[in-house]
Amino acid sequence: MSAKEQAVMQEAAAANTLPVALDAVGGDFGAAPNVEGAVAAARSGLSVLLVGDQVKLHAELGKYPGASALPLEIVDAPDVIGMSEHASDVRGRKGASINVANRLVKDGRASAVVSMGHSGASMAASLLTLGRLKGVDRPAILTHLPARTGFITILDVGANADVKPQYLAQWAGLASTYLKVVEDRENPSVGLLSIGEEDHKGNALTLEVHALLRQAADAGRINFHGNVEGRDIFLGSTDIVVTDGFTGNIVLKLAEGEAKVLFGWVRDALGSTLLSKVGALLVRNSLRGVAARLDPSTYGASLLIGVNGLSYIGHGSADARAVKNALLRADRAAQTDLIGRLTEGLVAAAGD
Amino acid sequence: MSAKEQAVMQEAAAANTLPVALDAVGGDFGAAPNVEGAVAAARSGLSVLLVGDQVKLHAELGKYPGASALPLEIVDAPDVIGMSEHASDVRGRKGASINVANRLVKDGRASAVVSMGHSGASMAASLLTLGRLKGVDRPAILTHLPARTGFITILDVGANADVKPQYLAQWAGLASTYLKVVEDRENPSVGLLSIGEEDHKGNALTLEVHALLRQAADAGRINFHGNVEGRDIFLGSTDIVVTDGFTGNIVLKLAEGEAKVLFGWVRDALGSTLLSKVGALLVRNSLRGVAARLDPSTYGASLLIGVNGLSYIGHGSADARAVKNALLRADRAAQTDLIGRLTEGLVAAAGD
Repeated sequence: MSAKEQAVMQEAAAANTLPVALDAVGGDFGAAPNVEGAVAAARSGLSVLLVGDQVKLHAELGKYPGASALPLEIVDAPDVIGMSEHASDVRGRKGASINVANRLVKDGRASAVVSMGHSGASMAASLLTLGRLKGVDRPAILTHLPARTGFITILDVGANADVKPQYLAQWAGLASTYLKVVEDRENPSVGLLSIGEEDHKGNALTLEVHALLRQAADAGRINFHGNVEGRDIFLGSTDIVVTDGFTGNIVLKLAEGEAKVLFGWVRDALGSTLLSKVGALLVRNSLRGVAARLDPSTYGASLLIGVNGLSYIGHGSADARAVKNALLRADRAAQTDLIGRLTEGLVAAAGD
Repeated sequence: MSAKEQAVMQEAAAANTLPVALDAVGGDFGAAPNVEGAVAAARSGLSVLLVGDQVKLHAELGKYPGASALPLEIVDAPDVIGMSEHASDVRGRKGASINVANRLVKDGRASAVVSMGHSGASMAASLLTLGRLKGVDRPAILTHLPARTGFITILDVGANADVKPQYLAQWAGLASTYLKVVEDRENPSVGLLSIGEEDHKGNALTLEVHALLRQAADAGRINFHGNVEGRDIFLGSTDIVVTDGFTGNIVLKLAEGEAKVLFGWVRDALGSTLLSKVGALLVRNSLRGVAARLDPSTYGASLLIGVNGLSYIGHGSADARAVKNALLRADRAAQTDLIGRLTEGLVAAAGD
């Protein structure tokens, strides 16, 4: 791409004239929640490219009266990476929806890609198609969890099941830059998820990572708080929690699953006696706010940080609300030129 | 020890004439919560050996009027392994409270050992002093978490930060036998904690463990359900969840920390408006039951399974209630000859 072409595309992206590409057949439930979410997003004014089998998508879209007037366009992709296939299947399957969707971003036809499909495959497709930001060996999935202090930022929550120590050290820097440029957070603190606050507690991996993070802190590149434990996540002891993608994925799914079951118990308890049923009517509104804070579909999807383009990855079990919110979130990130600012931030951090 | 001596000791243990040994100076807060918990347990009739610096323990015990009439005895141990020391420090420090306490069990003077001190050090002390059950390379900390189905049993939650695949396979068998003999649970199901339900999803470790668990299931030794995810823990998808001690420790502390923070939010929400304050009075009792279900001090401490003796390990942050409950729990296990039944069960399982 010439420098001029690039400038035109960047301008288009900044003016938000570009649609968001949705892997519309990815996820546990296929096209239905994806199309429903895209229709909802389009009704609020967002342009969406629905990527997937065009016959299936036309049929699904036909269920929504007036959909033809919405800013929705179908981009055909004959193939899809199933949830039980291998992430490496992404290579060589050019017609797979996740590959086509990433290609739309690469070619400047979409501002971002969103997928509720196979996380590993989404990561691989974005890595192969969009490439990496400078100084990043592996991208990571960055997400937020509610905490007593507001929220914490945690990565990797699922892109890399097996890691090398330097990946985590790089992610600490990436997430620090992210919070600086996106949330205007000055000097965000980084915690390394481990099994004891003391420096020497942990497993073989975290002991090595700890030493690298200490070095990065000594060089002034990050604000390293030290080890944090499982309980520190909801306490919000640090702004950022760094971990490998295996542990982070378990943390994320446990946190969401626990909140769901606990609120179920609270609901059951409120309906258990006549007295508490009356009380429940009075506390309902107050409790709704707490439940909303913990609902993963509020965020919709998580940023794959470290690739040279906007890529969002959500749960396979995502519902239409999650899809809609993910699309809106991706669009907001594109409007504020997240990748451009992240790149600048990384250059500045490296030059410090 | 002669066979006759052994028989006498076993009889004494079965008749519950033996006290429980408490590492009374271990944990984040030293002697105070340990002594307070032991006094409470002794008031309910339990005999306790308080192991630690005798001057310190006498002073602490002096705060409780009438303590001298309780079935409490101080056993001097001049040394203590601090929370920030290395687990391996246990070797060669014979006078450390955790070593003295384990020695009391080994010598038949106590039915069980309970410690809120350094988990790794407690594990090492029990392993070195009490030895292992047959077929067990490494003991694991086994605990329970509440689940929609009642509770689940999870191990290892902190004894082994780095593991080999066969450890997890052995723990699956150990926990299965435990649930059979302790809970009369027939054919308990085993889930391997991973990041996707599909067999091939996971990290390098879980892929190897998966194959071993499949073999054990094919040989009829365990009831292997397959991989489970973070969300399955609170759903109670399996009776047992097997994981390494790093992941398990993070799971345990996250689960407890999240419950605490969530209930704090519920409490805040209930006090946020006049209407909800009135409602809160009506729902209070119903909610109390939910909170109790999630309070870790109800269990008090977790069983170190795989050593040839009763050893319980609790949180460093344990309060007096946790200490008391841990002592009572250890005593109940001794009364029902848990180790004897576990050993028999393992022999039977091996002979199947």
